[in-house]
Amino acid sequence: METVVVKFGGPALTTPEKIVQVAKKVIKEQGRGINLVVVVSSMPALRREFRQYAAEITDEPSKREMDALVASAAQMTSAMLAMAIQEHGGKAVSLAGWQTGIQTNQKHGNARISHVDSKRIEEHLALGEIVVVAGFQGVTGTDNISTFGKGGSETSAVALAVALEAERVEIFSSVEGIFTADPEIVKESRKLPEVSYDEMLEFANLGAKILHPRAVELAKKYNIPLIVRSFVQDVEGTFIKGDVDMEKNLLVRGVAYESDIIRLTIGYDSYETASLAEVFSVLAENDINVDIIVQAVIDGVKPTISFTISKDEFAEALRVLETSKLSLGFSFADFEVGLAKVSIIGSAMASNPGVAARMFARLGREHIPVKMVSTSEIKVSVVIPQDEMVRAANVLHEEFNLAMKEVTAS
Amino acid sequence: METVVVKFGGPALTTPEKIVQVAKKVIKEQGRGINLVVVVSSMPALRREFRQYAAEITDEPSKREMDALVASAAQMTSAMLAMAIQEHGGKAVSLAGWQTGIQTNQKHGNARISHVDSKRIEEHLALGEIVVVAGFQGVTGTDNISTFGKGGSETSAVALAVALEAERVEIFSSVEGIFTADPEIVKESRKLPEVSYDEMLEFANLGAKILHPRAVELAKKYNIPLIVRSFVQDVEGTFIKGDVDMEKNLLVRGVAYESDIIRLTIGYDSYETASLAEVFSVLAENDINVDIIVQAVIDGVKPTISFTISKDEFAEALRVLETSKLSLGFSFADFEVGLAKVSIIGSAMASNPGVAARMFARLGREHIPVKMVSTSEIKVSVVIPQDEMVRAANVLHEEFNLAMKEVTAS
Repeated sequence: METVVVKFGGPALTTPEKIVQVAKKVIKEQGRGINLVVVVSSMPALRREFRQYAAEITDEPSKREMDALVASAAQMTSAMLAMAIQEHGGKAVSLAGWQTGIQTNQKHGNARISHVDSKRIEEHLALGEIVVVAGFQGVTGTDNISTFGKGGSETSAVALAVALEAERVEIFSSVEGIFTADPEIVKESRKLPEVSYDEMLEFANLGAKILHPRAVELAKKYNIPLIVRSFVQDVEGTFIKGDVDMEKNLLVRGVAYESDIIRLTIGYDSYETASLAEVFSVLAENDINVDIIVQAVIDGVKPTISFTISKDEFAEALRVLETSKLSLGFSFADFEVGLAKVSIIGSAMASNPGVAARMFARLGREHIPVKMVSTSEIKVSVVIPQDEMVRAANVLHEEFNLAMKEVTAS
Repeated sequence: METVVVKFGGPALTTPEKIVQVAKKVIKEQGRGINLVVVVSSMPALRREFRQYAAEITDEPSKREMDALVASAAQMTSAMLAMAIQEHGGKAVSLAGWQTGIQTNQKHGNARISHVDSKRIEEHLALGEIVVVAGFQGVTGTDNISTFGKGGSETSAVALAVALEAERVEIFSSVEGIFTADPEIVKESRKLPEVSYDEMLEFANLGAKILHPRAVELAKKYNIPLIVRSFVQDVEGTFIKGDVDMEKNLLVRGVAYESDIIRLTIGYDSYETASLAEVFSVLAENDINVDIIVQAVIDGVKPTISFTISKDEFAEALRVLETSKLSLGFSFADFEVGLAKVSIIGSAMASNPGVAARMFARLGREHIPVKMVSTSEIKVSVVIPQDEMVRAANVLHEEFNLAMKEVTAS
């Protein structure tokens, strides 16, 4: 019998009523004759409440205790769903992280999975039970509760799928799947039936909040197919896997964007004083995420480095740079706000260098100034003024014919 | 270094602010140079919220899942207290039931402790940490979360004290200690400096809601001294232990009462059809608690049996008796509502049969009718009309000079 792992996030679990809907859905899924493992995040209200209580006690909770606290919310939610499944005629058992056999390292709040012993889950599955797993948590080698940080429940789901040799992981989401562009801003966008892991990684990294890159990376590593689908409507979602059938000339698969980007530039008087590695080490130590990095030379001798950060981390980044100015040795720093990033994504892009040129040409014709550029094998990102972001996404969507239906190979 | 286990219940943990007060108190306690284990119940708001959520999903949650659900509330609360201790300069670690080494049987919702392996707690204590234990929970032999039912957190505290060979258990309560009578209804009542385990068991069973009999029984079995004291004021509480120094002529130590008692009587036509054991078996199977039982004979031939139950369980008891009327073979049933139970307690009572007589004489002089009587070695209970309850408690308190200060032997 095939095993399937499904994951429901906070938006699907807001109320007991919605949890009952999830229960009915998973009973139906299991009824198709599969072994079913359901990973749940916390009810959003609990998560908010718990965090608020903690904030009333301390600004800096120990990560170990914060893990014990937030993990309890998912434990509670998993018990609720197990009750709901039982109430509606199914067999179910809830398991907290320490009961699932998910072993992690000691890094509380951002733990990495070291090993999964799925024996207990398999025993429950053999009894015909739907196994409801409290998401984003495991247990350390010293029997402490650990949590995984962002994308944690998806990561739980994929890790369990690997251990159970599951057929696939289905991520039930508030969206129907992965789209060629955000339907909110590009009217012509359409749902992609399939994307590759690499494309999904770019979509995820470039601002599509549907799946966390970490879970996609794990799925890619072990070749576990992922499906992103709606928990509201029963329609086909997007299949994420290694090889994707696609029409040859559809080099670009989607357009992603991210708003509220800030460019920071720091300059040095000479190459002797420049210590670029140190700049990013200092920022990383302070948990400031740097995205696009561009190095340039002004006046032929003065090295400068520009990089983008999100608006949220701007104040902290300035503080860190100010504090470290002496040791880093830079002579000036400036910044530009009101920027956005727009990217085109497609795994066939690497073999066709004309794609980036076509992107820049179209933006040029549209008089949209490009401030920074970053490329990878499967995407090209440009930083542009934020007030041109929506227009840029739309013209690029049109330029690469993304509204056109794909003709699959089959 | 001596080890002390303290317990804080819901009323001490209503808000983050109150949890901070508890944190400061335990830091101070530990500062006296002791190993300190703190057992906490759940924040009352969480407990209410969780139960309400569960009730929205099902009227009959599985006990296993209910255990996972309610245990998570105490886990969350223990993490909060650990954070608060750390924030205010102490060292602390929170442990959920499965981390404390409290092994139980499989009876979810009302699990019995089979074994405590306190190794992990001892390791944390050796590091100078205050160990904050999520109350009323343990783990079954098959690694399921179990909870202990009523009095669970006190039971956790005593069980851990046994395993840790602790000096004592301190129960921080909303009351200052054990009183000769409820101060709410007997103005002359005073706090008892000491009571014996047996007396405490009677106080607990006879309606004083301060300590659950189960925890007292466990403490008695292993001779662990208990102290009941206020979490609000720093005043001496009541010491509960095996041998109690007391003035010889103070035979009666306290007066307890319980309101909303109902007497049920069932009668048989003959001894042949009477099956008294079966009546109480059927009631017990339906979780109806029977208190005082009196057997009498009417007309010389017709056996009857009267017993008291609480008002809450009246409807259910009637339903059960009605359903089982045929198999139980009784010929009539009647009941009397509006009753209360008033008891006098004292472990020296057994050697002085005059105490009961003096009690009845005084009630007689006061024209308070006695409906039923029940005695044990250390208490006498009478069932009387509820509207006479407060007066009865007061006259008995006066009759046995309970307002008088004890002269201890030391």
